[in-house]
Amino acid sequence: MNLEQNISLTAFPKPKLHFGDRLIEAIKAKGNPVCVGLDPRLSLIPEHIKRAVIQKTNDGFEGAANVFLEFNKGIIDAVADLVPCVKPQIAFYEQFGFHGMWAFEKTCKYAEDKGLIVIADVKRNDIGSTAEAYANAYLGEVEVFDEALPGLNVDAVTVTPYLGYDGIKPFTKACREFGKGIFVLLKTSNPSSGDLQDQILDEKVADGFGAEGRMKNYELMAHLIDSWGADDIGESGYGFVGAVVGATYPKQAAELRALLPNTIFLVPGYGAQGGGAADVKPCFNDDGLGVIVNSSRGITFAYKDEEYAKNYPPHAYDQAARAATLTMINDLKVVIG
Amino acid sequence: MNLEQNISLTAFPKPKLHFGDRLIEAIKAKGNPVCVGLDPRLSLIPEHIKRAVIQKTNDGFEGAANVFLEFNKGIIDAVADLVPCVKPQIAFYEQFGFHGMWAFEKTCKYAEDKGLIVIADVKRNDIGSTAEAYANAYLGEVEVFDEALPGLNVDAVTVTPYLGYDGIKPFTKACREFGKGIFVLLKTSNPSSGDLQDQILDEKVADGFGAEGRMKNYELMAHLIDSWGADDIGESGYGFVGAVVGATYPKQAAELRALLPNTIFLVPGYGAQGGGAADVKPCFNDDGLGVIVNSSRGITFAYKDEEYAKNYPPHAYDQAARAATLTMINDLKVVIG
Repeated sequence: MNLEQNISLTAFPKPKLHFGDRLIEAIKAKGNPVCVGLDPRLSLIPEHIKRAVIQKTNDGFEGAANVFLEFNKGIIDAVADLVPCVKPQIAFYEQFGFHGMWAFEKTCKYAEDKGLIVIADVKRNDIGSTAEAYANAYLGEVEVFDEALPGLNVDAVTVTPYLGYDGIKPFTKACREFGKGIFVLLKTSNPSSGDLQDQILDEKVADGFGAEGRMKNYELMAHLIDSWGADDIGESGYGFVGAVVGATYPKQAAELRALLPNTIFLVPGYGAQGGGAADVKPCFNDDGLGVIVNSSRGITFAYKDEEYAKNYPPHAYDQAARAATLTMINDLKVVIG
Repeated sequence: MNLEQNISLTAFPKPKLHFGDRLIEAIKAKGNPVCVGLDPRLSLIPEHIKRAVIQKTNDGFEGAANVFLEFNKGIIDAVADLVPCVKPQIAFYEQFGFHGMWAFEKTCKYAEDKGLIVIADVKRNDIGSTAEAYANAYLGEVEVFDEALPGLNVDAVTVTPYLGYDGIKPFTKACREFGKGIFVLLKTSNPSSGDLQDQILDEKVADGFGAEGRMKNYELMAHLIDSWGADDIGESGYGFVGAVVGATYPKQAAELRALLPNTIFLVPGYGAQGGGAADVKPCFNDDGLGVIVNSSRGITFAYKDEEYAKNYPPHAYDQAARAATLTMINDLKVVIG
């Protein structure tokens, strides 16, 4: 028996509160809906961190993984008292193989220990039995020999919807059992998101959902997401099945907000991708809730921006991130109220 | 500088032959289109492997990862001279965190060393810059400090298409540069694949693609996949942008084959999921090519099947897998000719 895993096992399960309620409570406690994206890029990380880490490890994948973790700890320490949640994007870690995955795991644990809600941006999905493996891996318990041990045990993951409900059901099962959440891709922030998402469906599809006129694929997806989450709305009025709605499409966001009053939107695309505070306004419900707004590069690499560089040298990258977070919180407050 | 990575670097790049040509050549060389799915499940792995490995490591995630690798080596050794390719499904490994990812990497390398084409079934995708990280991670080179080092360096990956071309382009770029391939989810094998994929589109969508009548979403996706791969058809007549078409939907497979004559189909769902040789026939072109047919549990855990159990005790699980592979090869030959 591995001691470290034994300790995790003893600490598990975490309080099985409804994820929607937990997230809304955290947003209220911090007084803002900002999510800090932890998407490290080696080329943008301050040299002093790289030098110090490489001396202790190596300049290969293992060194890179250690640099990521060190950099992330600085960011997490700087923003943990300000924001309700963080969202590490796994692709940047996965680049460095199992070393990178180690850094991803350690980053998630570190953020959790600092009281942050951790949303693993993994965009996983597959057919039923394989989706179950992913759901166990990130949200639930993993069968290992004769025991069930916690997997990565983050608070929520992002998932892709192309395979339909089979691929979602194992995740919602884990959400129910372990107090976790998912964010299903709905209308994504990228320029070509319309290739599939904006295509107009035959009138009969809308009829089948009791909707009028012709729906687009993302509206169909909204109806599906609504049906996948409808049975599990928390006391806050929000469910544990959330949706990813890009800040770069404010018009569509307004339509989707009307369709999905009980769904928390995870809104990427703020800052570096071009979305501003006014663009995310349509994502909010009238109660000023129902949204988390993610910014990654704009916060974590603020020390590289002209606006912050003059006051924050590379050694103070963490304080630059804190300043950028405070600016974002304020910008959102001005617009949302 | 890490020595092991230095060696990989020296060995890189592999011959940059077109992936479609390489795969078709391998199919011809082995005389069959069988792909063995390496989706290990701890509960189904013979006890003698588990006992031997646990004694050397532990009964936690690290032990599980080592058991997977040991089991996979047996399967790979038993089928390497028979089939052109293997397809490890990463979810089963990812369950065990970075230890699992280590086993995934080692499995891919082991299969490659045995001359097999390795398709990593990862179903990754994201917006542009993040998709680029995934493409580098699995197919290309990863920037680490001042060097570009090969990532996992498998031959191909599966990708999801919900985000449109932005999410595909970084992969096709890597395919072109490094002689790699992708298989885009098209019509998946699971029962609820129709939730999105079978929805009927407005007539105007078909008009836009020069098609007649009303297309379904999977037909739209076929047109998109065709356009994403059209510029990169190899000498074999097949491109490096393939498509995933489930064995469980033979009628749709026939339509898709007609739409995509230059696209290699990766066909899951054979065996355990209910698809048989007759069901996959419509996936083939008239030249008897253009397909790889995957079977996972039906081969790797054949020793558990009544049909094989009487001749192959758990210690001979690898020989049971070989026998099941030969049966599958033969069954396909009878139908395809």
